Amino acid sequence: MAKQTVTPKSGTRSVTLATVAQAAGVSLPTVSKVIRGRPDVAPETRQAIERLLAEYGYVPRAVRRQSPKRRTLDLAFDALGSAYGLELINGVVTAAAEAGVDVVVGLTPDDPHGIQWAQRLTEASAMGVICVTSSITAEQVAHFRRAKIPLVVIDPDDVPEGVPSVGAMNWLGGLTATEHLLALGHRRVATITGRPAALCSRARLHGYNAALEAAKIPPDPELVRVGDFGFDLARHEALELLALPDRPTAIFAANDYQAFGVVEAARICGLRVPEDLSVVGFDDVAISRWAAPPLTTVHQPLMKIGRVACQTLLALAAGERPESDRIELATHLVVRESTAPPPDVGSQH
Amino acid sequence: MAKQTVTPKSGTRSVTLATVAQAAGVSLPTVSKVIRGRPDVAPETRQAIERLLAEYGYVPRAVRRQSPKRRTLDLAFDALGSAYGLELINGVVTAAAEAGVDVVVGLTPDDPHGIQWAQRLTEASAMGVICVTSSITAEQVAHFRRAKIPLVVIDPDDVPEGVPSVGAMNWLGGLTATEHLLALGHRRVATITGRPAALCSRARLHGYNAALEAAKIPPDPELVRVGDFGFDLARHEALELLALPDRPTAIFAANDYQAFGVVEAARICGLRVPEDLSVVGFDDVAISRWAAPPLTTVHQPLMKIGRVACQTLLALAAGERPESDRIELATHLVVRESTAPPPDVGSQH
Repeated sequence: MAKQTVTPKSGTRSVTLATVAQAAGVSLPTVSKVIRGRPDVAPETRQAIERLLAEYGYVPRAVRRQSPKRRTLDLAFDALGSAYGLELINGVVTAAAEAGVDVVVGLTPDDPHGIQWAQRLTEASAMGVICVTSSITAEQVAHFRRAKIPLVVIDPDDVPEGVPSVGAMNWLGGLTATEHLLALGHRRVATITGRPAALCSRARLHGYNAALEAAKIPPDPELVRVGDFGFDLARHEALELLALPDRPTAIFAANDYQAFGVVEAARICGLRVPEDLSVVGFDDVAISRWAAPPLTTVHQPLMKIGRVACQTLLALAAGERPESDRIELATHLVVRESTAPPPDVGSQH
Repeated sequence: MAKQTVTPKSGTRSVTLATVAQAAGVSLPTVSKVIRGRPDVAPETRQAIERLLAEYGYVPRAVRRQSPKRRTLDLAFDALGSAYGLELINGVVTAAAEAGVDVVVGLTPDDPHGIQWAQRLTEASAMGVICVTSSITAEQVAHFRRAKIPLVVIDPDDVPEGVPSVGAMNWLGGLTATEHLLALGHRRVATITGRPAALCSRARLHGYNAALEAAKIPPDPELVRVGDFGFDLARHEALELLALPDRPTAIFAANDYQAFGVVEAARICGLRVPEDLSVVGFDDVAISRWAAPPLTTVHQPLMKIGRVACQTLLALAAGERPESDRIELATHLVVRESTAPPPDVGSQH
């Protein structure tokens, strides 16, 4: 590829793509392809063009392409099924409104390997994308990066390198929940994990393990059950736990929906919560305080997580870099009425 | 106002505003104001200009103003707090995605009389607006109409004339819920209504009344309590009902959150659901089947309501008129485990 040497016109922000094409010795459509993040450009050509764009002080499209009348960011979910999602929407919408930005709520496509979705957002001139609980592929991340579309993830399965992620202190939450049960006198404490692929599930389980270890309680693999963040599987696993000869007196569920599944399993077995079985959830979705009994759970500041994700994205779109690629907001335990001392200890009172 | 007679150029859709301004004998900014729905134009001038725009076959901005790359509609809530809202979002987003339209989720402003919100959406070139459970004023409706921005409402307090609304068969739902309790043998059936201003609350209460009337049970004003669709007030009212000397054996709550409040009140009073008290909710939000006990409730097809509202809006934006301004989707009773025969009847078994 022919490449001319040109003097960067520092100070000017209105470089034309024709100038860059001329400087790079390529056609205008090729420069346009690079800017739009299209993959059909040879890597060395892309790099040369990107270097020239940077030298010329080209302003990324994400910053300038939207009409000042309506600036929008995209909030994409893998599924829109839980109260967790609603609180995140609330946080993102509120923070975006303060910045005069509108929020497009959508679903990430089923095909995790395709980049059609990323291409569509690129062509729709997205100002930036917040992805929630989705598996985002390296190809998708590369596509957004080439198109200069900022990306922020909330509770991803894996955090793609260099992509800011926002979440709660899940390990600490798992630790606190389990410590609460141990402090009440429980020794047979089971857990039902969330979807194992999710980073937050793994962190909560490790918090549970750490609390047991600190209390010198040997781990019992029989008391660790794998869930999927849903009610049904948690109820099934809880029924198995409650049928054990030496059944647990407390269960730490990895989210509130799973805790409801445990409460229902107890009801089916004729056990009372909390008199016969203590249950702790995670999330503190609104409904958890309206359960019967009101649920002891680890509060995640979901609205605030949405706010911070939005603010991080807007900063990226304005050309800033966050101080840290990972932001973790504090969790705290909310003690309500689903936990109590275990039956044998309780009877001593 | 001077007005020239001009021959409409039938067949051409690309009339310029300058032509209309000339024909109406007004300035270009005045025509522009009429198109943008601004109120500061004398009514007779507005009418003359609107007539000319129609004669010239002016295509409303809502249809043509958006980039083909990204068409968006607005989904506006008075509050984003309940699972009800999430299921509507899911329905609207799914139906819009099928039409290649993106959905901006936002909040209607607190000031119910202001039209700043309507103006902002007009200037943001909204393709159309779906308003959920909001009080929408005549001024706002007039503003959207002048700006040719289609409007659809879901569960409004009042249905503004000429605005299509989508909802569930609330009266029939209230009737079915109450008939179910009467069929189980209950005679002391109370209800806790939703927010009295909402049309759907009034319809559900009338359904309850109709069922009692058909069963020749005289109405007892003491058994009709006013709620606000929230857990706390419903629990408070249920505690009062359960403290009555001749307490009800069944309560029809006007939504699921209120039903959870009733279940919690029963727990506080040491009453078992359903053995001592039957409870019926309304909505069938996902969480209702995960309650302890799983809730008998009236299923509203919320996702479908969202879909139909979206399809109605897209049809309006394409220049079609719906066959009916009011679309009601069927409800049905889902019998789970929170209802049973009343204690005295049950003991005869």
